[in-house]
Amino acid sequence: MGIIEEFSKLCLNEKPLDGGICVKSLVFKPKTAKGAVPVPIVVVALQTTATPSGLIAQMTSLKDPRLARDELFESFFKCGSAKEFNLGYLSCAESKFHLLVDEKLEALDESVELQLNEQLFVRKGGLVAYLNRFEAQTVDFSQEVAKVEPKKKQETTSTSAALEDAKLIGITVDKALDFPGWYQQILTKGEMLDYYDVSGCYILRPASYAIWEQIQQWFDAKIKGLGVQNAYFPMFVSSRVLEREKDHIEGFAPEVAWVTKAGSSDLEEPIAIRPTSETVMYPYYSKWIRSYRDLPLKLNQWNSVVRWEFKHPQPFLRTREFLWQEGHTAHLTVEDAKQEVLDILDFYAGVYEELLAVPVVKGKKTEKEKFAGGDFTTTCEGYIPQTGRGIQGATSHHLGQNFSKMFNVSVENPLGSDHPKLFVYQNSWGLSTRVIGVMVMIHSDNKGLVIPPRVSQYQAVVIPVGITKKTTDAERSNIHASAKAIEDRLKKAGIRAFGDYNDNYTPGWKFSQYELKGIPIRIELGPKDIEKGQVIVVRRNDSRKYTVQLNELETRIPEILEELQRDLYLKAKELFDTHRVIVEDWKDFVPNLNRKNVILSPWCGVMECEEDIKDSSAKKDDGEELEQDEKSPSMGAKSLCIPFEQPELKQGQKCIKCSRPAIQYCMFGRSY
Amino acid sequence: MGIIEEFSKLCLNEKPLDGGICVKSLVFKPKTAKGAVPVPIVVVALQTTATPSGLIAQMTSLKDPRLARDELFESFFKCGSAKEFNLGYLSCAESKFHLLVDEKLEALDESVELQLNEQLFVRKGGLVAYLNRFEAQTVDFSQEVAKVEPKKKQETTSTSAALEDAKLIGITVDKALDFPGWYQQILTKGEMLDYYDVSGCYILRPASYAIWEQIQQWFDAKIKGLGVQNAYFPMFVSSRVLEREKDHIEGFAPEVAWVTKAGSSDLEEPIAIRPTSETVMYPYYSKWIRSYRDLPLKLNQWNSVVRWEFKHPQPFLRTREFLWQEGHTAHLTVEDAKQEVLDILDFYAGVYEELLAVPVVKGKKTEKEKFAGGDFTTTCEGYIPQTGRGIQGATSHHLGQNFSKMFNVSVENPLGSDHPKLFVYQNSWGLSTRVIGVMVMIHSDNKGLVIPPRVSQYQAVVIPVGITKKTTDAERSNIHASAKAIEDRLKKAGIRAFGDYNDNYTPGWKFSQYELKGIPIRIELGPKDIEKGQVIVVRRNDSRKYTVQLNELETRIPEILEELQRDLYLKAKELFDTHRVIVEDWKDFVPNLNRKNVILSPWCGVMECEEDIKDSSAKKDDGEELEQDEKSPSMGAKSLCIPFEQPELKQGQKCIKCSRPAIQYCMFGRSY
Repeated sequence: MGIIEEFSKLCLNEKPLDGGICVKSLVFKPKTAKGAVPVPIVVVALQTTATPSGLIAQMTSLKDPRLARDELFESFFKCGSAKEFNLGYLSCAESKFHLLVDEKLEALDESVELQLNEQLFVRKGGLVAYLNRFEAQTVDFSQEVAKVEPKKKQETTSTSAALEDAKLIGITVDKALDFPGWYQQILTKGEMLDYYDVSGCYILRPASYAIWEQIQQWFDAKIKGLGVQNAYFPMFVSSRVLEREKDHIEGFAPEVAWVTKAGSSDLEEPIAIRPTSETVMYPYYSKWIRSYRDLPLKLNQWNSVVRWEFKHPQPFLRTREFLWQEGHTAHLTVEDAKQEVLDILDFYAGVYEELLAVPVVKGKKTEKEKFAGGDFTTTCEGYIPQTGRGIQGATSHHLGQNFSKMFNVSVENPLGSDHPKLFVYQNSWGLSTRVIGVMVMIHSDNKGLVIPPRVSQYQAVVIPVGITKKTTDAERSNIHASAKAIEDRLKKAGIRAFGDYNDNYTPGWKFSQYELKGIPIRIELGPKDIEKGQVIVVRRNDSRKYTVQLNELETRIPEILEELQRDLYLKAKELFDTHRVIVEDWKDFVPNLNRKNVILSPWCGVMECEEDIKDSSAKKDDGEELEQDEKSPSMGAKSLCIPFEQPELKQGQKCIKCSRPAIQYCMFGRSY
Repeated sequence: MGIIEEFSKLCLNEKPLDGGICVKSLVFKPKTAKGAVPVPIVVVALQTTATPSGLIAQMTSLKDPRLARDELFESFFKCGSAKEFNLGYLSCAESKFHLLVDEKLEALDESVELQLNEQLFVRKGGLVAYLNRFEAQTVDFSQEVAKVEPKKKQETTSTSAALEDAKLIGITVDKALDFPGWYQQILTKGEMLDYYDVSGCYILRPASYAIWEQIQQWFDAKIKGLGVQNAYFPMFVSSRVLEREKDHIEGFAPEVAWVTKAGSSDLEEPIAIRPTSETVMYPYYSKWIRSYRDLPLKLNQWNSVVRWEFKHPQPFLRTREFLWQEGHTAHLTVEDAKQEVLDILDFYAGVYEELLAVPVVKGKKTEKEKFAGGDFTTTCEGYIPQTGRGIQGATSHHLGQNFSKMFNVSVENPLGSDHPKLFVYQNSWGLSTRVIGVMVMIHSDNKGLVIPPRVSQYQAVVIPVGITKKTTDAERSNIHASAKAIEDRLKKAGIRAFGDYNDNYTPGWKFSQYELKGIPIRIELGPKDIEKGQVIVVRRNDSRKYTVQLNELETRIPEILEELQRDLYLKAKELFDTHRVIVEDWKDFVPNLNRKNVILSPWCGVMECEEDIKDSSAKKDDGEELEQDEKSPSMGAKSLCIPFEQPELKQGQKCIKCSRPAIQYCMFGRSY
């Protein structure tokens, strides 16, 4: 243990005044043939540097690295657990390991103070000297695979997720082989989103926010048509109010973020940040609603909510802060309320199917999966082909009178004051930026983002082509002017178009660039096209080419965009349809899950049986690797929904799992 | 002190499990002739009950109650300070006092446990029995003045702020006499806003949120025209990043809300909620901006920010959470950046003048008042006639290279890599929901809200009139059908119209109702109008009547709305123009402030002189009452801005306050 002591000598005696720059050290274990000894990978990087596992795999030529479990720390580094590990243990290593060091860390001044964990602080110079003993490899985590030396590239096996022809700026991970790595690259390189300094929070860059704006515009008009008005309620809620509906708060309590300080003063009482606004709003519904003439009250807000989940966060799908709309309505009759639940669900399905070209199945959640505190939940469920997992799209809840009784939202009986007062019937419904993640996962490919034209920030890019060294200045400016004229005509026709007339880049470079960003069509214009009075249009999704006459621009381009929109939908729908299978015999259940299907099975409707199905369909943990949430094959099947559209139930049909009679078909699947 | 002990016997030995329902006890001191002994007012109410001072005045027939200072607690209740006070001290009172008890408190079950402060808990039954010894008066704080018994009403002196003819639902406080009380009533009764359970936070109801939506639509189109794109950055920021720009954080640190817990776990490090997003965004600008071709980068977000101010909060004007937009742009050249600062300021002035009909003065903030960390701040400044105070409207900042150097936002030099890299020039600019408060203060009156038609949620209400007992069912339905047809025509013409065809209310009741809510015009239609093929149009702002022929509806109504919009602006502009006076002699300075003017004075530009002007123009505190922020007459004059439009400076003109030469005119005033 001598060298651990030596490492401890490197450490500073006191915490630096500014805390020091945070440095993380991660240990990964690659996938190894059974029985073979794994070579661990240690990554030392600035806390703020993202260290994608796809890149780590590439840098080490090792397969599928995952965060190591305690066992490995114990057997390899002689260290009790992952938690106890620090860089001092490197000197205790059983045998050779890989050590990757963040280039950004190496770039710091020698005297900079670093924070390794809450107790360990060290100067950069000392740390790097220490690491270099272990043949540390410097890595530019922002540059990624294309910079790997040729030798290493050749070592890469054919099953590696790295794309053979990946360009420097392009996507370097194969969607089919490393879906999570691909998803991260596609979002960041496509400039949709960036990772943020606070874990679980992400930056929505203009390319994704513009999609949200399109959705807002469409949905907002729909709900205003139903008489819904927008409002804004505070993001804070006192604990007393938050905790008033017991079932409801039980569902959210573990994820609530609490403000306890303002400036340097402690607040008298901690204040929660809303995880959703039922309890924020309903005390005021109670105040505002006095008479049945005040009904229906239909309010909606576009806001952000915070759910401090401790599970593995994922851009758009599971984030600690997310944008959404939440509608909260109060009705005199249960019929009115229930009708609205379904109307809203249709709008949600419309957002997916009409705007995002994503097919969904509408249905009702089981008792186990419904919104805590409500009467029932309706949902539209999507499907991610690569993982074979279902994904909850958006939910519309009927709350019954549960909240109205709790918050005393009631009106005089229209029959007269001698009749008992009536508690209102309430709904709440929400759709979040998760929709963008689902859309990206479904349509995008190894060249980058594919975005349906109805929602994409830009629908068309105009690119001059055919300019060579022989092109004269006059010809060049003629091409540019013609291209600009096309751009202007498209804009005038209401198409979100732009042009790229930069002479410093080749057309090929530009093509890749806008493929990466998912611009639905590119419009090429060269000298020959000008002669012929035409442009070449290329679709992003399948590179299909069209020749469009200039005089037909304003009619053909919108048609091509709409065809593209429809084709995206049809392709996704076929995948969903062929991977949604009816299974009536339990022995076929898990094999079908493993074939990346979601399953429609006859079911008894009993909660214990649902739990049993989940347990029985989970692959048992083999003790080798930490469950990584985004690719876990060990996950059991949950009920996704009881689809409104039901296969016919046979006479005497039994539940798929237990001996009780089936009462309906339920859709099950592994899920997000 | 015997009875204090007795009170303490009432108290529970332990804190209730749920903490108990919070009850506040407030002590007010009314305005009293010099030398006269004031009769204090003790208010005991649920923490969640708003206890407006206007109502307290009415209930006690006392003038202008303000929160009492320590002196009164000491002299009257023999209690060391306001902080030490509890209800036990009531029995030590020097002489008679008023005691108002919240009806909602009295309505609780006898056994309910209450929390009086962190140590004192008591059952409701015991507390009320105790309070009743002191001739407690039960008050329904939500019903307000109209319910005061006639006897008390007669006692009201003629200088009371209560309106003589106030109706039950209407505004009961005179704008001229109790501006803060009026402001609160007009917002809550006009259903623009409601008070919220967390102090300093307010609910924006549809009537105000719709105004914000109109502003968003207008401004968003303007900035998109400048090439700005919308995005969304997280609301959380780590302390390390937040504190990176020293001047900047010094300005915000005392108001930052900190999240320290999630669920039941303490966070490793507290995380701030953004008070503004410079430090949230700029680390990523540093990452995204590599080349001058990445410039300009122009991002905006529509979001909420949190500034946990401890000053007296005021709806729209000073709130702990507020909605705004914040634009953050990065430019290659200082000229570009500065031009944008002014372009944005023009848009801000446009929001005020073109949408909200509020005149503003554009100018530059002094060094003392500029945005912390920036190079200079431009502003548009409004004026509230009732208080004679200036109000900052919206600010557009040029940050220079301060932040870009701090966050390393730089690009390669376009001249080549052998030239030094260039730090970008940055701007930030924001406009908040404060604009709505300014608009309400300026246009609204004792009948309720007055909202300019360009931004109001509804522009016109159609009301059937002339229906009497003699009206036959056929006639009645003819009138309703004709009115509905007018509503439909207006909507089709793009006017935000609705109709009120409810037979349970008289037209007069409806008129008051929609005056209260500020609907710009009402359109009356009765049997005689139908005969004549006309409608009667009445303007909200001045009751001016128009007869409009039915065949001119689609042209005349928009004209009337635009005239109304213009007249609101002209009226407000005249008030601002006549109360913005040039003062060149210090002896005239304070008298002019006291005449509710803002002042243009020649000024030296020195920060110490500015501070001296503020101190010298403050009325000295007379030690009698707590400064109540919203009506404080003792406030000194701050510099509002150095107007772009300058009076000509005379040769050798001295500064208004010191002996230095004046370099410009500066606008000074008491302010919000």
